[in-house]
Amino acid sequence: MGSSFGTGFRVSTFGESHGVGVGAIVDGCPAQVEVSLEAIQAQADRRKPGQSDLTTQRMEADKVEILSGVQHGKTLGTPIGLLVKNYDQRPGDYGEVLDAPRPSHADFTYLKKYGVKAKSGGGRASARETAARVAAGALAEQYLQQLCGIEIVAWVNSVGAIGSDVDVNSVTRADVDTRAVRCPDPAAADAMEARIREVRDEGDSIGGTLMCVCRNVPAGWGEPIFDKAEALLAQAMLSIPACKAFEIGSGFAGTELRGSQHNDPFTGGATELGTSTNNSGGVQGGITNGMPIVFRVAFKPPATISRPQETVDYEGNAVTLQVTQGRHDPCVVPRAVPIVEAMAALVLADLARQV
Amino acid sequence: MGSSFGTGFRVSTFGESHGVGVGAIVDGCPAQVEVSLEAIQAQADRRKPGQSDLTTQRMEADKVEILSGVQHGKTLGTPIGLLVKNYDQRPGDYGEVLDAPRPSHADFTYLKKYGVKAKSGGGRASARETAARVAAGALAEQYLQQLCGIEIVAWVNSVGAIGSDVDVNSVTRADVDTRAVRCPDPAAADAMEARIREVRDEGDSIGGTLMCVCRNVPAGWGEPIFDKAEALLAQAMLSIPACKAFEIGSGFAGTELRGSQHNDPFTGGATELGTSTNNSGGVQGGITNGMPIVFRVAFKPPATISRPQETVDYEGNAVTLQVTQGRHDPCVVPRAVPIVEAMAALVLADLARQV
Amino acid sequence: MGSSFGTGFRVSTFGESHGVGVGAIVDGCPAQVEVSLEAIQAQADRRKPGQSDLTTQRMEADKVEILSGVQHGKTLGTPIGLLVKNYDQRPGDYGEVLDAPRPSHADFTYLKKYGVKAKSGGGRASARETAARVAAGALAEQYLQQLCGIEIVAWVNSVGAIGSDVDVNSVTRADVDTRAVRCPDPAAADAMEARIREVRDEGDSIGGTLMCVCRNVPAGWGEPIFDKAEALLAQAMLSIPACKAFEIGSGFAGTELRGSQHNDPFTGGATELGTSTNNSGGVQGGITNGMPIVFRVAFKPPATISRPQETVDYEGNAVTLQVTQGRHDPCVVPRAVPIVEAMAALVLADLARQV
Amino acid sequence: MGSSFGTGFRVSTFGESHGVGVGAIVDGCPAQVEVSLEAIQAQADRRKPGQSDLTTQRMEADKVEILSGVQHGKTLGTPIGLLVKNYDQRPGDYGEVLDAPRPSHADFTYLKKYGVKAKSGGGRASARETAARVAAGALAEQYLQQLCGIEIVAWVNSVGAIGSDVDVNSVTRADVDTRAVRCPDPAAADAMEARIREVRDEGDSIGGTLMCVCRNVPAGWGEPIFDKAEALLAQAMLSIPACKAFEIGSGFAGTELRGSQHNDPFTGGATELGTSTNNSGGVQGGITNGMPIVFRVAFKPPATISRPQETVDYEGNAVTLQVTQGRHDPCVVPRAVPIVEAMAALVLADLARQV
Repeated sequence: MGSSFGTGFRVSTFGESHGVGVGAIVDGCPAQVEVSLEAIQAQADRRKPGQSDLTTQRMEADKVEILSGVQHGKTLGTPIGLLVKNYDQRPGDYGEVLDAPRPSHADFTYLKKYGVKAKSGGGRASARETAARVAAGALAEQYLQQLCGIEIVAWVNSVGAIGSDVDVNSVTRADVDTRAVRCPDPAAADAMEARIREVRDEGDSIGGTLMCVCRNVPAGWGEPIFDKAEALLAQAMLSIPACKAFEIGSGFAGTELRGSQHNDPFTGGATELGTSTNNSGGVQGGITNGMPIVFRVAFKPPATISRPQETVDYEGNAVTLQVTQGRHDPCVVPRAVPIVEAMAALVLADLARQV
Repeated sequence: MGSSFGTGFRVSTFGESHGVGVGAIVDGCPAQVEVSLEAIQAQADRRKPGQSDLTTQRMEADKVEILSGVQHGKTLGTPIGLLVKNYDQRPGDYGEVLDAPRPSHADFTYLKKYGVKAKSGGGRASARETAARVAAGALAEQYLQQLCGIEIVAWVNSVGAIGSDVDVNSVTRADVDTRAVRCPDPAAADAMEARIREVRDEGDSIGGTLMCVCRNVPAGWGEPIFDKAEALLAQAMLSIPACKAFEIGSGFAGTELRGSQHNDPFTGGATELGTSTNNSGGVQGGITNGMPIVFRVAFKPPATISRPQETVDYEGNAVTLQVTQGRHDPCVVPRAVPIVEAMAALVLADLARQV
Repeated sequence: MGSSFGTGFRVSTFGESHGVGVGAIVDGCPAQVEVSLEAIQAQADRRKPGQSDLTTQRMEADKVEILSGVQHGKTLGTPIGLLVKNYDQRPGDYGEVLDAPRPSHADFTYLKKYGVKAKSGGGRASARETAARVAAGALAEQYLQQLCGIEIVAWVNSVGAIGSDVDVNSVTRADVDTRAVRCPDPAAADAMEARIREVRDEGDSIGGTLMCVCRNVPAGWGEPIFDKAEALLAQAMLSIPACKAFEIGSGFAGTELRGSQHNDPFTGGATELGTSTNNSGGVQGGITNGMPIVFRVAFKPPATISRPQETVDYEGNAVTLQVTQGRHDPCVVPRAVPIVEAMAALVLADLARQV
Repeated sequence: MGSSFGTGFRVSTFGESHGVGVGAIVDGCPAQVEVSLEAIQAQADRRKPGQSDLTTQRMEADKVEILSGVQHGKTLGTPIGLLVKNYDQRPGDYGEVLDAPRPSHADFTYLKKYGVKAKSGGGRASARETAARVAAGALAEQYLQQLCGIEIVAWVNSVGAIGSDVDVNSVTRADVDTRAVRCPDPAAADAMEARIREVRDEGDSIGGTLMCVCRNVPAGWGEPIFDKAEALLAQAMLSIPACKAFEIGSGFAGTELRGSQHNDPFTGGATELGTSTNNSGGVQGGITNGMPIVFRVAFKPPATISRPQETVDYEGNAVTLQVTQGRHDPCVVPRAVPIVEAMAALVLADLARQV
């Protein structure tokens, strides 16, 4: 189970790397929302492999098809089916059954859960499933835009130890996409891109962090106990492959502040109260306060590297594993940008439907 | 909604600070689990206010009653009702309706969601609801102990900028409880306790972090897509009041490593593979790998402080807010220890029931 | 599991016959609904045993307490806890472990599911759990009344082969309660009451049917696929102990009609279309059409009788079972009236929250 | 919402009559179940239109494709995507917007719910969605067969007032399929087929009932409160378009019996207790008892008829509606057989996963 997310706006994904494709069913999107397949495809294109020399060179078309729920460019109120066919549908055996579980991959844990050994290059824990999420999230975003003008922008905040400085209030997707690494701070982007090429050339990989801002979210969204807005965002982000951490607002750094420094004083707005600082990150007590929602997520260095690794096989015998050069993705954060945006949109759409 | 957590082992909480009490219904606990009310009460006692001079001096008895689902010390397989009566059940007006929303409290967001202004000292966003979670979590822990010997230990890892050094593999609850601040590193505990008294005496508050380890969790628990073990843990932790961040395994720091450093090589165990490092934090691809689950959470400084605060009232007029001295909790992390343990137990019990 | 019902307006029940009590948690009721505890108690009183010589003579006070979610007579938007304490809380052994499973009771099936043998007079499959449903349903009814003036009236339609003739459009609860048997057709009620006394005096029991009408339900409630209004009503009714059948509108009899007879022609209303007949029973394609929702449910004769029964014990040996005279309920339908009304209210409240 | 059914074995359907197709995602099917696409297609073929002169003459190929979750003929444990492409995918306007809501169709109720007027011949409430359920149910059946040899057989029990006599214990699908009307009682089948042709030739339609038996279901399945086996079956059946009633075991007729007649005495079996009668219909207290599950469902006469109908348009003006001859289905029960079997399988698979 666990292939569904959300209660009021619910997405269910399906599909493996080497079947017909991956897809998503969105249930709970209201009728009469205008749907742009182009806008969905644009986000899918930002996720797909092979966009630049910074990512894996595997090519996938990732063309999104709408199977149901949309007619004449508008939603019907019925479930919306989305399908991304696989470029290379090999119905049979794709790879060899691996003798040894790859370190920090899901080979070992999937064997324990499902009783099936993984095959090289295939398998069910594939990041390809995120293509379905991106399509569903892009749809959710259109709903949110039409509902109340919500804008969601994510960007690469750090690669390895290289940080950046970006204005949370003004950054746009266009700014983000000026650079292949998807960091809108030019100096940082230069250093990040150099760093990624360096680890790539060494057959290694590197981690990084993303930041994301959601603007124009109305006050009053979120549930007070287990389904706090920040709790659902945390689940959504940690459900992305390779994500290891989430923080909202002041996050870990805020624990070093005193309450008198950390509290966000209210300010009188034209029609609504705001706050003069935003350590809360746009939520208080699990419910949005109308300020931008700001959060940060961490992605570990990809587990697939082409350097030899000392490990053991399924029987516990020492082996040296080495993956063929050139297939691996040295850093996932540039391609994670639309995935983070999609998951944020799915959370917000779900909260919107529960208000 | 959102007052329920879990699918296979589901807890639903209810209750406000000034009604009859707070409670939880646990549905999905198997029949024939031995239940120790003493063990449940012990965790409730670790959460309750007034345990030391480091916390609020408000006194609450927090006596847990079992309403249903247990007979002769064993579960029946039916829903288990747990009730913690309020010490002081004032049915009527407890406090004054506040003129101004307190900064970084939920007063403003609750008004936006429910259309009701909060009263001083009362209200629905009370941390008192966590008493119900602790009781339910302590029950979940007993199920997990009997199922496969799972041990869950949380402790205070930092207060403000004061960190600590604790052996994740060996630390016990007894170690943790040697100090009021619940940090088992004595030197760090001294500094932390001094720090908390200092901010308390200044009418201020301070944040901190907790670490938590879950040992003896079998490999193969967790769901591969949205209900990854780490995703449910993240949701569970961010659903605790004042929690702002979650990281598992290497977390944010791991983003600075290379894959060749970060990958956890497998090692042959007596009956099962293990890993020689644990940057994964006990999960790979959302599924447990049999290694200890290790995660860290951040709690902001409590919003209630007794220093005057410049803010605005509901109409946007500038006001100075000041809470009566002596009521506030200068640092929540010591009392958050059993809450973090409870939420971890609820997540694991839920995964256990979905295997 | 399975102790919760509903998604938008969700009730979870708990409690056994011989613990502290039975209760319900209602999550999803909006804030600011006016709550009358008297109206809740009135429905609980209609369900409780010992109301007349037609039912079991066991006495239960069935006093409903509100644990949470209501303040100053209004809902807070938070979960509403309801508790009905047991009159006789014997914590220990209530009855003897039975040597033989009682025919058409749940003794055998509970043993198969939970691995525990039932005790006489106690146990988990008790009809007492319906006290919690009635309390929650009475609350749901108040929400529905305030939302759009919905009225729900159920009555006894038949006892054994004795039918009745009641005007679906005008019947009120006051009409229903003029007779102990809760059938508002006086001649039928006379015959029914005589019949129930007759089977009671013979140590036997008899079945019956109820009808229920829900008026003023707006058009447009219900979901088109699995959560059709009639499908949720069917689940709700068949979840009542001893219920064996459900039909909406024309039901089984309608299968003998032709489409030209069965179709409900539309008629122009003042502000809204209606239909000149109501074979649909108020729903079309799973969604309410604004006409009264009319359905009928069947309750089998109670399994507990005081006549001797030839059966076998758990080891398969032939035995004669005989229950002590005077404890059993010869016909459940009079007391089922408020339960049917409660379940209908819970379904409608859930649909109301999903619109 | 409401496009999903089940918790442990969950099916979500999607698709309209005139988009790409209809489909289902099944989440929760265990890994390693052998899947026969032929067996799935066989059930789809039993549902599709145009099988005989008794049904609509519209032709649909209804070819089932597996999109995901199955590899080398076995399930992977991941979501299984099933797609039935529409024969005639007209992306644009299919029919005219209707001036008047068709009596006893969902045109009016969908307008009220979604704010969109239906088009002739198209629309979202189409029975075509049941093709997806049949495919998912056929998969569920394979799981149940491999798990414990469960057999599910449904047949036409009556058409209009014409009943039949069939041996519940021995009837097979092959028996059922000997006749186009799917009633295995030859004399009754003759009369039924004549009756259907008669109403068809008069441009009218007729209702009917189905019976269904589920054999080899183990004792102990089902949940005791809201998710009783019979309650989920009732929901499942009433969720089928045109279904108006459900009864299990003795049903409505059983209300006329006394407890001493209705109770099912236990009998000692070789390894397990059985009962000498089966008025319970295979369930007691919501939980299966190992006896065959037997239930009956009612389908109203189809609302689409070719005789003229007096009704009103959306503005309340009197109009005469007439559908073009030859398109309508005079009686749905023969084609409902695989749908009832599918829904029964989905309920049982869900209960199997919750044991």
